Amino acid sequence: MEQRVIDTLRRVFELNGFIGIETRAVEQGSSLLKKGETSKEIYLLSRLQEVGQENDTPIEDRLGLHFDLTVPLSRYVVEHSGDLAFPFKRWQIQKVWRGERPQEGRFREFVQADIDVVGNGDLPEHYEVELPLVMVSALEQLRAYGLPKATVHANNRKLSEGFYRGLGLSDVEGVLREIDKLDKIGADEVAKLLVETCGADEAQARACLELAELTAADGKELSSKFDALCEAHGIAADSEAYQLARQGLDTLAMIVDEAARIRPGAVIADLKIARGLDYYTGSVYETFLDGAASLGSICSGGRYDNLASQGSRKYPGVGLSIGLSRLVSYMLHSAGAHASRVSPASVLVAVWDEEDRPASNLIANALRARGIAADVAPTAAKLGKQIKYADKLGIPYVWFPADKAGEGAGDEVKNIVTGEQTAADAQSWEPDTVYAQQTVEI
Amino acid sequence: MEQRVIDTLRRVFELNGFIGIETRAVEQGSSLLKKGETSKEIYLLSRLQEVGQENDTPIEDRLGLHFDLTVPLSRYVVEHSGDLAFPFKRWQIQKVWRGERPQEGRFREFVQADIDVVGNGDLPEHYEVELPLVMVSALEQLRAYGLPKATVHANNRKLSEGFYRGLGLSDVEGVLREIDKLDKIGADEVAKLLVETCGADEAQARACLELAELTAADGKELSSKFDALCEAHGIAADSEAYQLARQGLDTLAMIVDEAARIRPGAVIADLKIARGLDYYTGSVYETFLDGAASLGSICSGGRYDNLASQGSRKYPGVGLSIGLSRLVSYMLHSAGAHASRVSPASVLVAVWDEEDRPASNLIANALRARGIAADVAPTAAKLGKQIKYADKLGIPYVWFPADKAGEGAGDEVKNIVTGEQTAADAQSWEPDTVYAQQTVEI
Repeated sequence: MEQRVIDTLRRVFELNGFIGIETRAVEQGSSLLKKGETSKEIYLLSRLQEVGQENDTPIEDRLGLHFDLTVPLSRYVVEHSGDLAFPFKRWQIQKVWRGERPQEGRFREFVQADIDVVGNGDLPEHYEVELPLVMVSALEQLRAYGLPKATVHANNRKLSEGFYRGLGLSDVEGVLREIDKLDKIGADEVAKLLVETCGADEAQARACLELAELTAADGKELSSKFDALCEAHGIAADSEAYQLARQGLDTLAMIVDEAARIRPGAVIADLKIARGLDYYTGSVYETFLDGAASLGSICSGGRYDNLASQGSRKYPGVGLSIGLSRLVSYMLHSAGAHASRVSPASVLVAVWDEEDRPASNLIANALRARGIAADVAPTAAKLGKQIKYADKLGIPYVWFPADKAGEGAGDEVKNIVTGEQTAADAQSWEPDTVYAQQTVEI
Repeated sequence: MEQRVIDTLRRVFELNGFIGIETRAVEQGSSLLKKGETSKEIYLLSRLQEVGQENDTPIEDRLGLHFDLTVPLSRYVVEHSGDLAFPFKRWQIQKVWRGERPQEGRFREFVQADIDVVGNGDLPEHYEVELPLVMVSALEQLRAYGLPKATVHANNRKLSEGFYRGLGLSDVEGVLREIDKLDKIGADEVAKLLVETCGADEAQARACLELAELTAADGKELSSKFDALCEAHGIAADSEAYQLARQGLDTLAMIVDEAARIRPGAVIADLKIARGLDYYTGSVYETFLDGAASLGSICSGGRYDNLASQGSRKYPGVGLSIGLSRLVSYMLHSAGAHASRVSPASVLVAVWDEEDRPASNLIANALRARGIAADVAPTAAKLGKQIKYADKLGIPYVWFPADKAGEGAGDEVKNIVTGEQTAADAQSWEPDTVYAQQTVEI
């Protein structure tokens, strides 16, 4: 299941010109942690031979497992900046680890699927609409496995920050943290928290909520509703705060309009989207599935102008990340997909007698040479037992080699689902259904 | 490069009916270590929040990274024994980690590609020739990337042990350890070591070397040469030691003859192959590449009758493992393959003006819908700069959208390698060469 999902995503990413990279799972502590940071959920490594002496080494010099694919991308871009063609578009699907206590529905080891585009010095704005659209078209491909429709909710950090500052609120991070709780605890509770923890008065709190709840059909409506809101709350069009908000608004309006033209309904403006403020500097995205609000965002990201730097050189980026393990887990439990521990083989070649095994092997090899996955019965057991083995493995056909298939009969093949049995030639036979190659997980 | 190699191996494994599984990288210390073992090169994990308190937890209860794919298979088989159809044939390609000091040509993180077949209670002998042949046919597919021909060298632990015991030597493990050095230090040095460290006299040491150097064209010759050797050294045909050796000899003769019939030259008997005696109980394999003796074995394995057990129930297995990272590294450095940081896109659609970007996007999407990977120029820079970007990314075609391609001209596409430029339609155009999807590594 997971392997098929990965293959599907990879195909879409490559169709869109993203280059696949793979980075080592083990990074230096100094890359994983900003100086002094100790709250991150990171696994550090110790060699078995060094147990008991680990703490002689400062954390920066120890090794740890990467907890996302952004930190490794940042290292990669700096290390290879001389060789890369910028903007550098990369996809990366790998395991990441979080050193957290395992809980229901949380994994300490999971797969993420990321796309990012990284510029050298600058990065055109059009990527801020293109990348979410690539993710939407990738998720669209997964609807074949029962995934509901996905919608990207976009916002812009500059828009929020400019508006809050225009209102006279300086704890921008605090306001966003409370606004982020809107869906969970409702407007009244959020208003209370804004007053209690962010120094807002009633009117400011209400204004923040009005912004969060603003909806618009297109960029033009978004723009005029925002301006009306600013006017209502006394944010002057020539103020610095408004100018900042306006930058974010223009980008968001562009994203919404462009996306609507290319794929209507795929990307909407949602002014309550917050996301890691310390990290993103412009657009932010979260992605929700129809009828699966409780799952939360399955694909998030944004623009970060300071992904990496080398001296005065900056590498801005835009990226989105799918939490693949969680998504696959949802698909298996709720979306009607199922994990199957089935053989990739389309056909099991029966063995009449251990001495006839070479004949059965020849048939299997002839089928494989033509791209048809084939297995050979493990023992020359009774025919019923061989068919049962195929059935347990989900192999739909059993092949009976000629010499003992019956009085003077040639090779025959039986569809064990329908019971139909026909003459067959290993040089030309084709299964009715091409059974997908499948991979199972633990 | 590595991704293409993985795809190739996976295809061969699935054609042969192996089921892909993926297991978590993090296992319990108690699974990774036999009781009291401390010499293994294992990475243990500590949560960042627990640094300094790690040693309060016994190693068995800590978590560690798997160092091979056999330990996880063993756990997997026991956990899922109720659901699996036995014999269970699985492939698994994953990263593994060794907690060793990094050295030239050694990796602390690398990819292994394993196939194993595991029986419930017993396991037919024919898998002992089939599995090495699957590996040979997989390696054969890699010759397209410049890999030299691979030959599996097979031996049998029972054969060696029976012969040594027949000679009167009881330190079987010691003898095999010294014999293993034959290619490196030569027969005279090995003979010396056998005398000095394994309690052998001159005649016994010489007999061990004679066995190691025995060669034979087929199973029959192998058998008669072995019997002659036993007679010469006074090992009686009715002795227990000879009976043990005979069991191994019969299996080895079967393997050599069967393999010769199916794929001549793919598997040869090589009586100096030793490999982890504590682990394998019958056949052992190593695989060497023509002209790359210094690389050592690139694919090793064997039969282990005690892979896993549950109460009195045993799960015997046969498996081989390719050290994929080392192999890819060799292919890149010595075998003429090359890593390329190229785009998977076949064509870059030019952008005349930022306002025309939607037209370029439409063309790219039309190509993608037909399975042709396409990228769009990052900026409406001068045409020369756009072509240079395609060139740096290894994209062979640049597409010029209609409206400005020339006076009244329609869409045109230019092969930037040959310089040829022709009229083209995004609904029907095909690139001359299908450029392979490529993935680069760090």
